[in-house]
Amino acid sequence: MQGHFHFTTAGESHGEGMYVIVEGVPAGLALAPHDVALDLARRQLGYGRGGRMQIERDAGRIVAGVRLGETIGSPVAIVIPNRDHANWQIAMSVEARPDAGDEELRRVLLPRPGHADLVGLLKYGRSDARDILERASARETSARVAAGAVARRLLGELGIEVGSHVVRIGPVHTDKRGEDGTDLNRRSDASDVRCIDHETAERMRSAIAEAAAKGDTLGGVFEVVARGVPVGLGSHVSWDRRLDARIGAAMLSIQAMKGVEIGLGFEAAGLPGSRVHDEISVDPTSLRTGGFQRSRNNAGGLEGGMTTGEPLVVRVAMKPLSSLTRPLGSVDLTTGDAAEAVRERSDVCAVPAAAVVGEAMLAIVLADAVLEKYGGDSMTELKSNFEAGIERMNAVAPFRSS
Amino acid sequence: MQGHFHFTTAGESHGEGMYVIVEGVPAGLALAPHDVALDLARRQLGYGRGGRMQIERDAGRIVAGVRLGETIGSPVAIVIPNRDHANWQIAMSVEARPDAGDEELRRVLLPRPGHADLVGLLKYGRSDARDILERASARETSARVAAGAVARRLLGELGIEVGSHVVRIGPVHTDKRGEDGTDLNRRSDASDVRCIDHETAERMRSAIAEAAAKGDTLGGVFEVVARGVPVGLGSHVSWDRRLDARIGAAMLSIQAMKGVEIGLGFEAAGLPGSRVHDEISVDPTSLRTGGFQRSRNNAGGLEGGMTTGEPLVVRVAMKPLSSLTRPLGSVDLTTGDAAEAVRERSDVCAVPAAAVVGEAMLAIVLADAVLEKYGGDSMTELKSNFEAGIERMNAVAPFRSS
Amino acid sequence: MQGHFHFTTAGESHGEGMYVIVEGVPAGLALAPHDVALDLARRQLGYGRGGRMQIERDAGRIVAGVRLGETIGSPVAIVIPNRDHANWQIAMSVEARPDAGDEELRRVLLPRPGHADLVGLLKYGRSDARDILERASARETSARVAAGAVARRLLGELGIEVGSHVVRIGPVHTDKRGEDGTDLNRRSDASDVRCIDHETAERMRSAIAEAAAKGDTLGGVFEVVARGVPVGLGSHVSWDRRLDARIGAAMLSIQAMKGVEIGLGFEAAGLPGSRVHDEISVDPTSLRTGGFQRSRNNAGGLEGGMTTGEPLVVRVAMKPLSSLTRPLGSVDLTTGDAAEAVRERSDVCAVPAAAVVGEAMLAIVLADAVLEKYGGDSMTELKSNFEAGIERMNAVAPFRSS
Amino acid sequence: MQGHFHFTTAGESHGEGMYVIVEGVPAGLALAPHDVALDLARRQLGYGRGGRMQIERDAGRIVAGVRLGETIGSPVAIVIPNRDHANWQIAMSVEARPDAGDEELRRVLLPRPGHADLVGLLKYGRSDARDILERASARETSARVAAGAVARRLLGELGIEVGSHVVRIGPVHTDKRGEDGTDLNRRSDASDVRCIDHETAERMRSAIAEAAAKGDTLGGVFEVVARGVPVGLGSHVSWDRRLDARIGAAMLSIQAMKGVEIGLGFEAAGLPGSRVHDEISVDPTSLRTGGFQRSRNNAGGLEGGMTTGEPLVVRVAMKPLSSLTRPLGSVDLTTGDAAEAVRERSDVCAVPAAAVVGEAMLAIVLADAVLEKYGGDSMTELKSNFEAGIERMNAVAPFRSS
Repeated sequence: MQGHFHFTTAGESHGEGMYVIVEGVPAGLALAPHDVALDLARRQLGYGRGGRMQIERDAGRIVAGVRLGETIGSPVAIVIPNRDHANWQIAMSVEARPDAGDEELRRVLLPRPGHADLVGLLKYGRSDARDILERASARETSARVAAGAVARRLLGELGIEVGSHVVRIGPVHTDKRGEDGTDLNRRSDASDVRCIDHETAERMRSAIAEAAAKGDTLGGVFEVVARGVPVGLGSHVSWDRRLDARIGAAMLSIQAMKGVEIGLGFEAAGLPGSRVHDEISVDPTSLRTGGFQRSRNNAGGLEGGMTTGEPLVVRVAMKPLSSLTRPLGSVDLTTGDAAEAVRERSDVCAVPAAAVVGEAMLAIVLADAVLEKYGGDSMTELKSNFEAGIERMNAVAPFRSS
Repeated sequence: MQGHFHFTTAGESHGEGMYVIVEGVPAGLALAPHDVALDLARRQLGYGRGGRMQIERDAGRIVAGVRLGETIGSPVAIVIPNRDHANWQIAMSVEARPDAGDEELRRVLLPRPGHADLVGLLKYGRSDARDILERASARETSARVAAGAVARRLLGELGIEVGSHVVRIGPVHTDKRGEDGTDLNRRSDASDVRCIDHETAERMRSAIAEAAAKGDTLGGVFEVVARGVPVGLGSHVSWDRRLDARIGAAMLSIQAMKGVEIGLGFEAAGLPGSRVHDEISVDPTSLRTGGFQRSRNNAGGLEGGMTTGEPLVVRVAMKPLSSLTRPLGSVDLTTGDAAEAVRERSDVCAVPAAAVVGEAMLAIVLADAVLEKYGGDSMTELKSNFEAGIERMNAVAPFRSS
Repeated sequence: MQGHFHFTTAGESHGEGMYVIVEGVPAGLALAPHDVALDLARRQLGYGRGGRMQIERDAGRIVAGVRLGETIGSPVAIVIPNRDHANWQIAMSVEARPDAGDEELRRVLLPRPGHADLVGLLKYGRSDARDILERASARETSARVAAGAVARRLLGELGIEVGSHVVRIGPVHTDKRGEDGTDLNRRSDASDVRCIDHETAERMRSAIAEAAAKGDTLGGVFEVVARGVPVGLGSHVSWDRRLDARIGAAMLSIQAMKGVEIGLGFEAAGLPGSRVHDEISVDPTSLRTGGFQRSRNNAGGLEGGMTTGEPLVVRVAMKPLSSLTRPLGSVDLTTGDAAEAVRERSDVCAVPAAAVVGEAMLAIVLADAVLEKYGGDSMTELKSNFEAGIERMNAVAPFRSS
Repeated sequence: MQGHFHFTTAGESHGEGMYVIVEGVPAGLALAPHDVALDLARRQLGYGRGGRMQIERDAGRIVAGVRLGETIGSPVAIVIPNRDHANWQIAMSVEARPDAGDEELRRVLLPRPGHADLVGLLKYGRSDARDILERASARETSARVAAGAVARRLLGELGIEVGSHVVRIGPVHTDKRGEDGTDLNRRSDASDVRCIDHETAERMRSAIAEAAAKGDTLGGVFEVVARGVPVGLGSHVSWDRRLDARIGAAMLSIQAMKGVEIGLGFEAAGLPGSRVHDEISVDPTSLRTGGFQRSRNNAGGLEGGMTTGEPLVVRVAMKPLSSLTRPLGSVDLTTGDAAEAVRERSDVCAVPAAAVVGEAMLAIVLADAVLEKYGGDSMTELKSNFEAGIERMNAVAPFRSS
């Protein structure tokens, strides 16, 4: 057993499909295929995404752990069939194909800079980079999004909402923050770059178009915000129970992410303490913060590795996609000669989609932390413990019990 | 069992001491008390640190797992006695002290903004914030540094070196990178702000002095660099095997860290792909990269969640210390009235020390990843597998085997 | 990440199928569908099994992690479709079926003694025992057997062989031991009760027939034997690294198992030390024992939580099947009245099949322990480390190095 | 993070002491040094134990995680100093002792059959068996007993009681079961062989005396019983969440244990189903079983990997001690010649002590399972969730909600 809410994925990009098993989901959670389909569709959208998205059109199929519309305590399994697999039956055959040639097998013998290709080949002792790139592909994130959809449903029952928006694409960025206002995803999903600032969104589209014209790619920064998170998830007592550590791992585990920050993040490093720390006052109406409130939320909802009850704010930096139309210098592994790397796909910018993956990962971390603190084999039990817990925290301060 | 090289800590800031158990250390690693003492001493230094450091003067005592100068395969236990504990015998008594008053028990009834105090009280149902702050204190990092010293010794046997330097303190920063040149710690340890650029160091000291004068505190950014890391640690195959995820968790688990980035990090989000990805060429003399080389190291030594063999470069953002001489607004928990938070310690800036903790955490992650890939119950076995593995990776490319 | 060779299953007995993801399989392991099919078929055989087996006729489909006949380092996913699912589309529908009645939904409202039914209902807050029994069913072991087939292939490459035989069915038992002689499965698979003693096998069949006539069921004891296991897997250093602990968990995790013993097992508790411990002598020809040999193998191949290199011998006690034709007293959950429990299936004895599951679990534990000690991302690397390790162990004794 | 209630030990038999860190203990658990001392003393008693026990006289010292008589959420650390260490300062020196000879270093060059000596030497590449035996020694179980004492306190707050008794020593055994009646430890602790049947106890003492006279040793079987365990701990949904698996691992992880069984155990394998499974009826007064009762408890309190609420009954087989006065044949590792193994200690029978270790391990497994189901960062929270959960389970059956 590992964690409370835990997922495991399998599947190659052009294989039969993606597979995910989610363990630790309490029984009695209403879960329908469209819950999963919705998030899978959100991951597929975005300005500047190439034709492959049309093929993927993921539609997850729940194949275990749900009966008659509800989870039953069993592991939940979801399959996301690959609609394009028919075209890859030889190249991605499970069985040996001794008669097929390199081309038919779509072997990749030029490792692509920025991808896992070269390192993976060396580590796993392979000669065909397809053995690596098929699994390293960001298509694996569809399985994470499916698992995240389950977590999102669970959190939804507890009044916790996870959303995201894009704050930077290449050189274009906005200072607009997602925590100012509710219903973040309604606003960001309305934009094909998932940016809630219309003027910035327009400039982002221009930047993408410009990069496309040059055969180049762009990365960016997205922000994930969770609202309604109760105070006290995670813990200060051990390094691996701290929620910031777990969020850091979750975010940097997403393909192509190179940085993560919480609250003020790197900006906090440049400011004096008096301008950083969030002063405390009393607010008996704010139940999820334990009846206290903060002057501001520079901490991004985390203090001492625990949630404060304020919105949880995480920003993640994504590098530009590694597959450029304008190819990068590499080495032909059959000859050792310099050569230009093969281009596997043609998106220009995937930050809007990555933000949806970021939501999924944060939802999973939070579902895990909620179950860690509150236990619960059924949603009824979880909700009862959860509500009693929040009430109890609101009575902890000695001045409240008198 | 958890991980390969795994540590567990216990201990309160003013308790008897800090305790750490390190599991998974191969037998036959030469390990002496001074190996641990050296890193503990490095953690204590730094311009702008208050008087408490004098008291701490940590000297770890190895109490298990080492016999006659060598590890024997058993868990290694290290105790770091607290020299100041004598003054805290009542307040930190293990046994109940029904006769002692609030003051004698040094109860903390005003939670300090920026600390774990308030959240911890609510979560754990306590009324005295000392029950929280004693464990949330950064003094726990002494135990991590002790564990990291064991990891460093192991890595040293394999030719892997971990160092750090400070690149920002408050508003002052440098662009100088630690990967340009060897022997990073020799250069950074020579500076009391652990900055390798003399002119910047001078300005850092001024900024600290200025903040001290105002009763304020400063955070900053440190960079940890590992050199000699072989290609192929970590993995692209599952989210929780990716080395970037594990580094992210390790760094954000350190008290007061709010951001982490690898290689170009957040900067990569603003650049086009053609300026980010590191082109590949052949270099048969570069064994640890598998006989390839990169045009640059924007990836910071990680591609696809695996090490590339180039220097591993991680930067971490630390918020300013939360205990200001100039106190922050809080709430008196006995009355519910607004009040000013108590000041527990008086350092102005702890970034140089935090960088040493960052080294420890990276060393631990790398020792774990090395054992994961290479196995080995003794150092002899590990080294043999390690060397054979590197040789094998240098022969993987088809053009080399012909 | 958890363990080195780790599996996760999902799936309900009458759902779409069973799903298993195996993590940690090195790249380059030749793996074909028939490797999996073979063990799945072996699990289905056995005298005294009812008609459901005909329906199951498991044929696992590898859907991820294998390309062109070889593993590629990715998680391996195997699906075992349920051929009978067509008849259960309403009762096991993922989506809500508000119009279907209790019968159509095949609700089970009488918890069956000996099953997970009652306890599961209470724990997970369900009212229909089908929500529990579908997952608690031993059909889940097909997924384990599929994972075990992967482990068996890996072990086979290292010359480690795992077999089993049945030593007791109900009152009938044999003293014949599986470690005396090679090729255990060839001998046991030849018997429909998987007993290698012909005369005992005959009596076992009679006992099964007799129980069937009475509407009763039988349990028994099977023995799993691993040969070729090298000395030094597992460890004495921590409780959760001991191989006996891990074997104990693996075996008692199989549905209906109530006891496990290693080597002499419970018999050792009755004998004096002089008749139990296995004396040591030198045998330079015995490489897998490190060049030593034992006077006998009462330890069952495990000393101090580590393999000795002698055959690993584990016996497991299975209780009789809980679904009797002759029903057991229970309670109607809708009325609270005493009632007789519903009979879900009609096998009389499943010990021969359970023995195959026991093989799978032992193979998985051993594959995990091999990777823990020897590392290896590819089979080439694993084999090289493995062989060098055995050679090294044969040179450890000082008298050998001189 | 691993598990909920998790412990890690370090320490060598003749080193400075034993060290244990217990993670996951809720805050607010009253815990005093004598709670730990009591169980440590119980582990030391027993007829037929040699002089070393006098030296050990363990008195655990709580050094972290407890303040003013209560846990505070932090990891609890306990040190058990070794009173005999003064005599071993050279042989067990942490620092190298190049001038000391083999005798002064108390090197062990004859591996003892039945011990970890030989296998450990080969695995870890050591030449002195002391490097192995110091950690493999059963003295490590003192650390487990200390951790178990913390678990016992936690369980005690929930009305769960864990006791044990000895049912076999060598050839002498009793059929008396510990679950028949309360307050098991009061009865077993009154006996120096921890047997609750006076006549059997007398014969056990005779058997021990007889073995001692022959220079031989004896093993035996102990039974651990937990009463007050609520229905629904553990789970049927995944192999590694099943409580029987976790109990199996915990028990076989104890030094010298060769078998474990639950309820009827191996006996169940010989009986027909109609005589094994425990029929179900209604008993609204029995809260911990969810308002049901069983006709008998052949299942030993576990069905489908979950507790039934009936007493949990586990029996464990211990092999005879491996250090006989009458030595066993081995090999001198310096010469390769046949030789007689060195005798490190002289107990004849340690089953009564092992039973106390078994209690500790079961208490730890149960504390972990309780926290898994009920969560809770403080004892107040745990108790509230626990009581609400039991009440909820008593209302699950549809006939009760109407």
